[in-house]
Parts: sequence; structure tokens; C-alpha cells
Amino acid sequence: MEEQDYKKLVDMITETIYKEIKPKEEASNLFSIPVEISNHHVHLTRDSLDVLYGKGYELSKLRDLSQPGEFASNERVSLISANMKAIEKIRILGPIREYTQAELSITDGYFLRLDLPTRISGNIKGSPPITIIGPKGVLNLPEGAIRAARHIHMTPKDAEYYQVKNGDRVRVEVSGEHGVIYKDVVIRVSQKSKLALHLDTDEANAANIKGTSLARIL
Amino acid sequence: MEEQDYKKLVDMITETIYKEIKPKEEASNLFSIPVEISNHHVHLTRDSLDVLYGKGYELSKLRDLSQPGEFASNERVSLISANMKAIEKIRILGPIREYTQAELSITDGYFLRLDLPTRISGNIKGSPPITIIGPKGVLNLPEGAIRAARHIHMTPKDAEYYQVKNGDRVRVEVSGEHGVIYKDVVIRVSQKSKLALHLDTDEANAANIKGTSLARIL
Repeated sequence: MEEQDYKKLVDMITETIYKEIKPKEEASNLFSIPVEISNHHVHLTRDSLDVLYGKGYELSKLRDLSQPGEFASNERVSLISANMKAIEKIRILGPIREYTQAELSITDGYFLRLDLPTRISGNIKGSPPITIIGPKGVLNLPEGAIRAARHIHMTPKDAEYYQVKNGDRVRVEVSGEHGVIYKDVVIRVSQKSKLALHLDTDEANAANIKGTSLARIL
Repeated sequence: MEEQDYKKLVDMITETIYKEIKPKEEASNLFSIPVEISNHHVHLTRDSLDVLYGKGYELSKLRDLSQPGEFASNERVSLISANMKAIEKIRILGPIREYTQAELSITDGYFLRLDLPTRISGNIKGSPPITIIGPKGVLNLPEGAIRAARHIHMTPKDAEYYQVKNGDRVRVEVSGEHGVIYKDVVIRVSQKSKLALHLDTDEANAANIKGTSLARIL
């Protein structure tokens, strides 16, 4: 083989490998997922709302949340833990749920001296006890205080687009200076979702997120 | 050249290139940098300490910090901002500095309603005003409230080992579940440093860091 043939062969091989390993800049890699910051809040069962606000009380809507059917209510409760510290006027998110729980940040956890486990909403087994105080009554919960696992809500169509599936844990980057890449972000797929990355206040603050921000799955 | 000769040549070249580009698992990639969490604190000049604690007052040591010569003092101050909210009993870190500043978390910033810029300690130009209250006097600072830029302290020898230099901004991963990768972590090299990643409380909480943790530069 002539030297120029060798060179041609090497070029061909190099190009083939380069194409293979080049990072793919697909549309699904762009910063395209809206970031939403969840302040601490509680979810209540019908029975819990009966105790805290009175039998048959109905939550009134302050504003709709991004996830269809969900809303921030005008009603609030206060939380108190065994160290006798209180966080006052935490908002109740509606509608009524199948479980009663308080979703708190780790910062709240230090204040209330609770070692909060990181859980998907609704999974409260073995979490620390918390007392919820409403205008009509008090609930002493044997468990129910968690830190919500950061997650992305999406539809099956979104999941196909981003090439992920329900329950996956992915790495997610947020745009902007002093940002972070979150590990272990849980994908939550359901037909009635709206695309959004949900972070708590600690997670948003660590990434210096103020106002509107976008994220992408790595 | 026979077809099988071509194939052999391609395989050889491919293997050579692959070895070259494969991520290198070097010792400097391991989780080896201790993580330290800085609670909000203030640094004071001689003049500021005179105002707040009285002329010629000397700070008394509560405990040494990891960086040689630096210490947490027994003395504290309270901060108050224009929205009339106060954070009480913030620790003064010694020794006396060339500047007076309050290093706060973004969570604190929301509470005090201050839009904190992210800065290297000492760079306070244009940062929001803050009032510092001591037992003997009050300081109304026209500027001085910042959020400290996360950073890694290291010696020149460490910098050589990790292949970074003073002022570099790197990505840093912390170990553990629900961890994060911090972008824009500033490398601070000095002869009298001790290797440590310094995070604020928001940044530590977002990564679920409780107790001892290690980090690595990516």
C-alpha cells in the first residue's frame, strides 16, 4: 500500500470513530424543562382536614399549580416538633390526598431537629413524627415529615422525547452561573402531568435560581 | 492488502484511540477532598469590632477552624436589614480582617429580603447594605452582605496534584445519595491552606450532606 493510501485509511477510520464518540447535540439535550420551586407545604386526608379545620371543611383555592388539578389553598397550618420549635403558617396544597404529610426542606429539618428522609411524595413509612396545628384542632402524627425527592413531572410523550421512563433517576443540569447538576432526580410519568422539574428551596438556593430557570437531562 | 489485514489495522487503530480518550481513573479523581459547611458568619475590621464590642476589644476563641490561624470566636452579633427582619446571634470569625462583611445563605437573603451577590470573600463592592448590632454599638454598612462563592482551599502542592490553579472554576461532585455536582467552584491556592471544600448551608442541604462527606474535582 502506498503512503497516501495509508493516510486515506487513517482519515476514514478517524472520521468514523469521531462521529461515533462526538457528543450528540439533540433537541432533547437543550435547556427545555421549566424549573419550579416548592416551598414547604402539607398534604392532608379528608380525616385530617376534618380535625384541623372542622368536619366537612372545604379548601379554597388561592391559585392553580402547574400540575393539572392541583392548587395552593388559602388555608394554612403550623407545625411543631418534639424540640418545641414551630414553623408557622405552612400552606395546605389541594386537593385532599390519600395521605397526610409535611414536605419540608433540610433547613427546616435542622430547625425542627428532625432527620428527614428523602422520599417520593406519599411514601412516609418510618419518617419522623410531626404535630400539625389548625384553627379547630391538633394532629399528632406518628410519622409524616419528609424531604421530597426532587423530580420531573412529565407525560408519556415527554418521556419518549427525553428517552427516560417512570422511576428512572437522572442527572439534571440547571442553566445559569453558580448552577448545579442534581443527581438522583426521579422521573415521574403520568398522563395528566405538565413538564416541570420540582426542587425544594434549599436545592433552588444552592443553584442560585431566582425567577425563571430551565433545566436539561444529562 | 487483504480484507482481513484491513480489519486488523482498523482494530489496532481503534484500540489505540480508545485507550487515549478513555476517561482516566487517576488518584486525583477519587473522592478525597473533605467537605466543610460554613454557617452564616461575619468578618470584622479592627474599627468595626471597636464599634460593636468596645475600643480595643479582643475576640476570644471558641474553636479553631480548618484553615490555619482562623477561628470561630465566642462573640456574636445580630444582623438587621431594611425590611426590619433580624437574624440573631451570628458568629464572628477571627482573626480581625481587612474588611467587614456578612456571609449569608440565599435562604437568609430571602428572609432579610436582600438580593445577595455571589462573591469571593472580601469582594463586597456594590453588595447590599446591612446593619450589624453588637453589645456596645451599631454599624450601618452601606455594603457588605454577600453569599460566599463556594470554593476549595488548597496548597500549591495540592493544586499540582489536582491539576488546577488559583482562580480556576471547576465542577465538584460530592459523594452520597441525592448528591449534587456543583458548577463554578473557585480554586483558592495559598501556602497556608488546608485542603477543604467550603459550602454554605443551602449547598450542603441540597446535597443531603450530613456529617462527614468527601468531594472530588471532575
